[in-house]
Amino acid sequence: MIKSIDWTGRTLRIIDQTRLPDQLIYRELHTISDIFDAIRALQVRGAPALGIAAAYGVYLGVRDKKIKTVMAGIRQAESNAQYLMKARPTAVNVKWALTEILTRLSLDLPDPETLIAEILRIARQLHRDDQSRCQKIGQNGAFLIEDGMTILTHCNTGALATTGIGTALGIFYTARQQQKKIRVLVDETRPLLQGARLTMWDLERNHIPATLITDSMAAYAMIKEGVDLVLVGADRVAGNGDVANKIGTYNLAILANFHRIPFYIAAPLSTVDFNIGHGNDIPIEERDPGEVKNILGRLPITSDKADCWNPAFDVTPAHLISGIITEEGVVYPPFADKFKQLNHMMYQNQEEVNL
Amino acid sequence: MIKSIDWTGRTLRIIDQTRLPDQLIYRELHTISDIFDAIRALQVRGAPALGIAAAYGVYLGVRDKKIKTVMAGIRQAESNAQYLMKARPTAVNVKWALTEILTRLSLDLPDPETLIAEILRIARQLHRDDQSRCQKIGQNGAFLIEDGMTILTHCNTGALATTGIGTALGIFYTARQQQKKIRVLVDETRPLLQGARLTMWDLERNHIPATLITDSMAAYAMIKEGVDLVLVGADRVAGNGDVANKIGTYNLAILANFHRIPFYIAAPLSTVDFNIGHGNDIPIEERDPGEVKNILGRLPITSDKADCWNPAFDVTPAHLISGIITEEGVVYPPFADKFKQLNHMMYQNQEEVNL
Repeated sequence: MIKSIDWTGRTLRIIDQTRLPDQLIYRELHTISDIFDAIRALQVRGAPALGIAAAYGVYLGVRDKKIKTVMAGIRQAESNAQYLMKARPTAVNVKWALTEILTRLSLDLPDPETLIAEILRIARQLHRDDQSRCQKIGQNGAFLIEDGMTILTHCNTGALATTGIGTALGIFYTARQQQKKIRVLVDETRPLLQGARLTMWDLERNHIPATLITDSMAAYAMIKEGVDLVLVGADRVAGNGDVANKIGTYNLAILANFHRIPFYIAAPLSTVDFNIGHGNDIPIEERDPGEVKNILGRLPITSDKADCWNPAFDVTPAHLISGIITEEGVVYPPFADKFKQLNHMMYQNQEEVNL
Repeated sequence: MIKSIDWTGRTLRIIDQTRLPDQLIYRELHTISDIFDAIRALQVRGAPALGIAAAYGVYLGVRDKKIKTVMAGIRQAESNAQYLMKARPTAVNVKWALTEILTRLSLDLPDPETLIAEILRIARQLHRDDQSRCQKIGQNGAFLIEDGMTILTHCNTGALATTGIGTALGIFYTARQQQKKIRVLVDETRPLLQGARLTMWDLERNHIPATLITDSMAAYAMIKEGVDLVLVGADRVAGNGDVANKIGTYNLAILANFHRIPFYIAAPLSTVDFNIGHGNDIPIEERDPGEVKNILGRLPITSDKADCWNPAFDVTPAHLISGIITEEGVVYPPFADKFKQLNHMMYQNQEEVNL
């Protein structure tokens, strides 16, 4: 399995996902601002991967400062976290990872060097945890996959979007290891074409039969190609089960509902924002209209003067979602009470951090 | 208003729509095979415009042969019609226009020269009729448009798609002449981007406020931008009111239905195929997967080996359609009986032609 993110000991090595599928280029990120820029430019992307990249970013940002006291180191880590959270506002995994680091740091540490080592240790731990969570999501989701199914997916949720086998795509890989034959229909996912560029590339490498369609073909594919299941990832899940994910997910949820096709989300619990009760309160990143008007920065498709809207995500209401596949099992509606229990279980030992 | 098609006296001058919006290039079509190629390559497109281009094609194909008898001329016209109908299978307007010509030709004509002149006269008449039908559709549809409305459209249905002011876009122009302020959201319409390339260009020229979105943003736009109406064209309407139109139309119809937004079709009655009772029987053109994988032939977005599906149209079932705006008024569901009456009215004097 390809590694979207790899810690070299001194730097974070990432795959520049803006160059795929033409070129497989690795970049070395040396500083916190390298990491901020790579996140902003979508060289590294996918909610779980963003969380881990940001965790290493906090470490690099503290390591590279002349820190004289443990208190100053903690302050610097907090400041780094505030900075990194601005890179992309919708994915909550960045906030989750940074909160994990900050709540585990202690003023009782003997010196700044120990503090800095401790931050790296936590980042490495979160990185390993993400890999094992992907495995568990794969196992939990593969129970839903039957031999011979045709599954429609959107955007990219595989190894490139996480640090492990992925979320939705990880489920496909797991099902395939279980000898289930599946076929995947891949929405190209305009504007940035993560489906066409990344998911098709990833499925081809892993020998899973895949067919590319434009986003506009989804409904017709549901009746003509016999879609059995729609399975996508998430960038943030509200406490009531509303899901923010790549723009076009809400389209698919409505189309699946109309055709009575099960619609599932695959995401680690770090994607659930227990502080947000309703999807309407999730901040939705609006990106440069140039991403729509000039495809991949290389092909202008409309007038320079054209007005254009470019929300990067949309919100799918919980009532359209059949279930959310997490590392702790599949959560079925109504989601709110189950999320409250999971929240209690996960965060009972975590202090309040103001981020 | 720009002319997508213009008869010069000897040749058909068309705008090469594959070059818009970068370049406004006119091409002179001298022969029937020039016309066939221009239709196939989508240099001329839009169901109503295709019908008229094909009518001139029949004329050019007879004119350029050494025809010795009226009978031979009629045979040649029939053969030309068969050939032209193969250029694009879904738009029924081509068949309609060719049937109109063939049913009006008579063995009683005195000589081949008169026959050839008669074919041109009929083509010119159909051309003028298309222009006046667009005007009527514009008037009939503008009744549905209220001041301040936001309207979502798909593909291109304006002057470029017809020989007049257009169908759905013609309604926008008419509403604007009536001093109604409207805003149009334009689906980019992958794979061939007729919305981004043609509709945005046309609306900008006509000073109608327009915002470009990707097809994947439609559902989110319906709730975030407050869409009041969805209005699109048609390539073929079955006798029961099922509509074949540009791929992505079925998506929109379901999304509109879910959000309780009226969903209207604008099309001349020549788009209704009274011989087909159900949308499932409409032939759907599948085009080269390269149109999806390599955007506008210029930007590859996925692996060369990638499997890809490229239906050019989909079928929207009649139960999702609020009404069909024609030159004879707005037809509301149930469509079948009203279409039968209109069929009887339109074709009572037309002989049976085997096409």
